[in-house]
Parts: sequence; C-alpha cells; structure tokens
Amino acid sequence: MIAIPATWMRGGTSKCWVFRRDDLDVPGRTVDEVLLGLYGSPDARQVDGVGGGTSTTSKAVILSPSDRPDIDVDYTFAQVGIDEAVVDWGSNCGNCSAVVAAFAVYSGWVEPDPSGETTVRVLNTNTDQVIVQHLPTPGGRLLDTPSVAIPGVPGLGAPVRMGFVDPAGRSTGTLLPTGRATDELAAPAGTYAVSMVDAGAPVVVVDVTALGYPADQDPHSIDLGAQTLATLDGIRRAGAVAMGLAPSPEAAARAVPKLAVVGAPTAEGGQLGIQMLSMGTPHPAVPITGSVALTLAARTPGTVVSDRVGALPEPAGGLRLDTPAGLVETFAERDGDVDVVGAVRTYRRLAEGVAYLSADPADTPPSHHVTDDVDTEARDA
Amino acid sequence: MIAIPATWMRGGTSKCWVFRRDDLDVPGRTVDEVLLGLYGSPDARQVDGVGGGTSTTSKAVILSPSDRPDIDVDYTFAQVGIDEAVVDWGSNCGNCSAVVAAFAVYSGWVEPDPSGETTVRVLNTNTDQVIVQHLPTPGGRLLDTPSVAIPGVPGLGAPVRMGFVDPAGRSTGTLLPTGRATDELAAPAGTYAVSMVDAGAPVVVVDVTALGYPADQDPHSIDLGAQTLATLDGIRRAGAVAMGLAPSPEAAARAVPKLAVVGAPTAEGGQLGIQMLSMGTPHPAVPITGSVALTLAARTPGTVVSDRVGALPEPAGGLRLDTPAGLVETFAERDGDVDVVGAVRTYRRLAEGVAYLSADPADTPPSHHVTDDVDTEARDA
Repeated sequence: MIAIPATWMRGGTSKCWVFRRDDLDVPGRTVDEVLLGLYGSPDARQVDGVGGGTSTTSKAVILSPSDRPDIDVDYTFAQVGIDEAVVDWGSNCGNCSAVVAAFAVYSGWVEPDPSGETTVRVLNTNTDQVIVQHLPTPGGRLLDTPSVAIPGVPGLGAPVRMGFVDPAGRSTGTLLPTGRATDELAAPAGTYAVSMVDAGAPVVVVDVTALGYPADQDPHSIDLGAQTLATLDGIRRAGAVAMGLAPSPEAAARAVPKLAVVGAPTAEGGQLGIQMLSMGTPHPAVPITGSVALTLAARTPGTVVSDRVGALPEPAGGLRLDTPAGLVETFAERDGDVDVVGAVRTYRRLAEGVAYLSADPADTPPSHHVTDDVDTEARDA
Repeated sequence: MIAIPATWMRGGTSKCWVFRRDDLDVPGRTVDEVLLGLYGSPDARQVDGVGGGTSTTSKAVILSPSDRPDIDVDYTFAQVGIDEAVVDWGSNCGNCSAVVAAFAVYSGWVEPDPSGETTVRVLNTNTDQVIVQHLPTPGGRLLDTPSVAIPGVPGLGAPVRMGFVDPAGRSTGTLLPTGRATDELAAPAGTYAVSMVDAGAPVVVVDVTALGYPADQDPHSIDLGAQTLATLDGIRRAGAVAMGLAPSPEAAARAVPKLAVVGAPTAEGGQLGIQMLSMGTPHPAVPITGSVALTLAARTPGTVVSDRVGALPEPAGGLRLDTPAGLVETFAERDGDVDVVGAVRTYRRLAEGVAYLSADPADTPPSHHVTDDVDTEARDA
C-alpha cells in the first residue's frame, strides 16, 4: 500500500478529497491512474476506494501554492469517473471550490489576516477562472465553527464568500455567444425561445412558458419524466451547437452546456424559480457555476431571465434563486471595470490523514475467484 | 472541531469506519451522538460527515483489546442511521467483521505469527459470537497485498478466513427455534413451506417452488416487484413470530430475521441459488451471517435447503452459494465438539487519520439562513 496525504472536505453540497499536487506523483503511474485507484474506480459503488459512488462524492481538489504573483493557490478540479475508468479535467466544480481557501490556511500557505477577514486568490486551472475567497479570521484565527446554513446541507457550516472574477465568456469568449439575448432555437421536439449565456459555465436557459406551462408555474413541479428530459436534452444539445461548443448535437458533451428551466419562485424572498439539469437528471439544488450565469443573465436586458425578474439594483446586485433545496443568493459586484459574481458557501473538514493506494496496479484486474482459494485452503488445512 | 482517530476500511462488500473504543469518549456526548455527528446524520446524503448515504457505507467498527484470556479483540458493530438520528447496536455485520484481525495487527494488539498464519480471536459483543480469523503472515509480516477476488468487489483484495464458532442459536437458543426443520407457515398471502434457522443470524428460508415457480427456477430471475416484496415480508414477519423473535408480525424488526429465497444455481459450481432480502430490498450478494445460517441449514436433514442440495461431505464441508453477484463459498468444520462456519472475505485499508466532529452540538440545528448573512455582508461591503 502507498500512503498518500489526503484531506476529506465538504464544499457546499459536494464532498471532495483534497490533495497537494506533489503528493499525487507516484512513480510509474499517471495522476489519472492514481486517482482512479484511490477512488476505487471503475465500480458503480466504488466499494474499494474513497469515492462515494455518486457524482457529488467522486471529486478531487488538487492544490499547490501559485507561482503567479496575483494568485495565492492554483486549484485543479478532477471529476473522477465511477463506472468508467476516466478522469474528467474539463470543468470546474463551484461547490468544491469552497474548500480551497480554508485548506490554504490550514496548510500555512496563506496567513490569516488579524484584521478579521482573510482574502485568498484562487486560480481554477481547468477554466482559467480567478475566484476570490473571503474567510472570517477574527484576531488572526480561522473561524471555522458552524454559523451559516445553505440549502442541501443539514445544520450549519463555516462560511466562505466566493467571487468569480470576470466570469463572462470563459468557454466561448463572450457572455452571449450567439450575439443575441434570446434566440428561437430549433430542437428535435420543436422551436424554443432560449437564452444562451456563458459565465461561470455555459448555460442554456428556457422559461416554463416555452414548455407550454403558464407564466406562474413553479419549475420544481413540472413533469420531469423521461420524455421531458429527452426534450430538454435536445434543447441543450441544439444550444451546444448554437454556442459553438460542439459541431453537432450528437457531439455535445454531457456536462456542457448546462440547462436551466426558469419559472415562478414559491419560496419567500425568491426572485427566480429554477430547476437545473445535471448530467441528464434534475439537480437537487444549483451548481454554483450555473448560478453565476443566471445572475449575469438577469443583469442582461432581453434574456428570458431578465424578462422574468425585471430591473435589478444598480450598480450591481445578486439574485435570490429558488432552487429545489431552498433559496441560494448570489451577489454581483464591480471590481474596477470587471464583474465579480458569486455566492456564500460553507465547508467542513470531515477527515484528514492518508489515503491508501494498492501497491501494484498489475494486481488490480481480477484473475481468479475466491472459490479456488477456499478450496485450496480447505484442502491444505 | 474535535479530531478523533479513525481508519476507513473495506470489509467484504461494506465500507466501515474503525475506531478504538476509548477514542469515542467525548466529554458531554454519548457515543451515539459522537457517531451521528461524525457520520453527518440525520441526512439522506450524509453530506456533512463521513457516512456514505447507504446502509453498506454507514457502519462503524469499535475495537479494543479484550480482557478475556481466550479473546484477543472485543468488537462492537454499530449501524449508524442515515435519515434517522438512531444508532442500531442490535446486530453484527459479517462483512465489517473482516477488518478486525488486520486492524489488530496494524495496532500492535496481535503479533504476526512468523510461522505463516496468524490467528486472531474476535468477540462480537452485539451477538456474543466468537469469530476466529486467520491472516496470512509469511515471515511474520502481514501480507495485505491483493490476491483474492470476492463477488461484489472489483479486482482483488487481501484475504481473511473467518469462522463463526458455535453459531447456532445465538438469538433464540437453538438452531431450529420451532423444533422442526420445515414448517407450514401461515402468512397474509397464504401458507408457505419454510425453514427457520438461527445461526450467524436468524433466517427464514423459502424455496422458489413455494412461491409457485418450477424447481429449476433461478431465484435471481424471479419477479421482485412491490407485491412480491410485500408477500415475502409477510412471510418474514410471520417467521419472526414463529421463531419467538417478535410478539406479533407488526412488531418484527426490519432487519431480523433475514429472508432467503432459494432455488436452482446457474453459475458453474454453484450448489444453491439464493436471493436474500435486506431491509425489504433485494441484497446484491449475501450477508455473511446469512450464509452461515444457510450452511448449517444444508447440513440439517429435512430443511428446504438440504432437500435441495442433498447430502454434503462428512464430517464437515461448506456450501457454494450462487448469489446475484457471483459464487460465495462457505466452509463448515468441527473444532472439538463445536461447529465453526464461515467464509473467506477480503479487506483493504482505504484511509487513515482523524475524523472531525463539530465542536458544539448546540450549533447543529439550523437557526438562520444564508440569505440573511449575504444581505448583511453585501450591505457592509
């Protein structure tokens, strides 16, 4: 067994194993092989590793102090395959992002500011996105006692305020890749009015009215049977082509762009009811990267989001999203001439120590069955 | 945060956190509160703790060196509630049992025997069951490199051979609590020929023919829709009463007795096809405690199991069970005048270090919502 230093943290509504970049260097193995071995993949249950058998619990956060003077920590996200022996390095996870600043303080990479708040500048290398994170550090000590609730997490957690700096166009070059706030998009099941927005992540936004529901429809209560999910995925794939993310609908990635159905909020204080889809299934709350896109869509006249929520406070302001798990509030600020958009998440360190990798990858493929061993053992005994 | 030493191990097809008994002593909290806090319960996802959100990944193994001269390690099993803030101490887990001997060697409680095999005598305190475990220790070193495959775990694992000593009647006092090898049991949906056997765990065994299938029916392929599951649970609850485990069908525990449907094997070398139910749903393989009961049922003339498998080799021998995940082979031996029944399982240490408990349980109930904090923060900024 090879012992690899590892820390298990909850970030928002995800559970993420955190590694120092150098600790994943194992002679004779790629980083992908190391992660798949540690997580017990491929296996639907990940029973022989530290992965949790679901997309929100098979995530890795890989960190190192940054060489860039304007950045404290380089952060690379990996979505570790469950059934498949594949590691996806193509996107960031907003929830896992929430553990980075605290880990940097725990590791001594960033000194807590005795003024009461510590700022950690994080570069997500997957998306070339700077995320500025603020932690409460009264008296120069990290205050990681639970004090804040977020939807999807029981009880309270320690807060981190995360701002995505200048998030527009990171995947396509511009906030509105088609050049229009709303498009009539031809999809297999019909033509739909959608807004296609690239900020935090590329998102196709469709209003409940475009799906034949009344304007006051709560999007959490719409039919999400197999046929509707197929219709929505058809819209998403047509959007991928329109945004220049894929050459054909069939070639669109499963995770990019995301799709959001918007409608009337029902929770008190909510401004926008949302139901997002993640990897083809309804998301239990909201991906934080998707909430960034919806916030900038709300601030852009003519999108299906701004049509619904109306004028927002100037010069900047966030959005109260009514998700299936409850209200998530984003913020939008100006820092000089760039937008900073984000939300408060919570985090918690769950466990810390080492994770074990089996010593010899050649031993991993099954070659014989326990029955034979038992027979031998019984005969020898 | 309170740091509690903890080791995460796979035992058979379960994932179990292992604690030294004294490490769970936290001033002002019960052990139940400590476990629920560490595991993130109650919460369907256990997102804020080390639990995995499924019954096979929300298990704790609590160990200490034994005071008894004939026992090396005292082992207490806890099934930590997921949705409910309840810890169940009423049964053992055969799969988690597989980690005990290796942990005792890692901890220095048992010296590896240089003769090549080390024997660790384990007392499960939940069931007052002695389990003798054998580990390969060539040259006095624990050989924990992967070499053995078991159904339900991809690849190979390190083997441990586990024997349940004198397992009959641990719950009811006798192997056949009704005094008969087969009973005609009246259940809500009809009367069924069943064998009720108490060894390892109490199990109600019903043959596929009693459910209206032909004798050559593979039990993995029977209908297991909601109506059949209700019929089988009715048989199980009637069995609970007949075995003296519950005063009425309604009062029967969800987990005790277990129920096994037996039929024709399909896998090469299989002697008995089995489909067990666990907490009302089909089990993916077999609980090891249940396999002990089936093995002694096979050796008892007149049970529905021995009627099917015929005479077994004397003086003792195991059973090759064809489970949904593949073949599991048990062994049955005599040690002096007692039966020792068990199987080979594999184990792996997944991670080791500390698990963190939130400092103040009074902080745990949600008292306010992130929205308020963001508002305040945005106003102050």
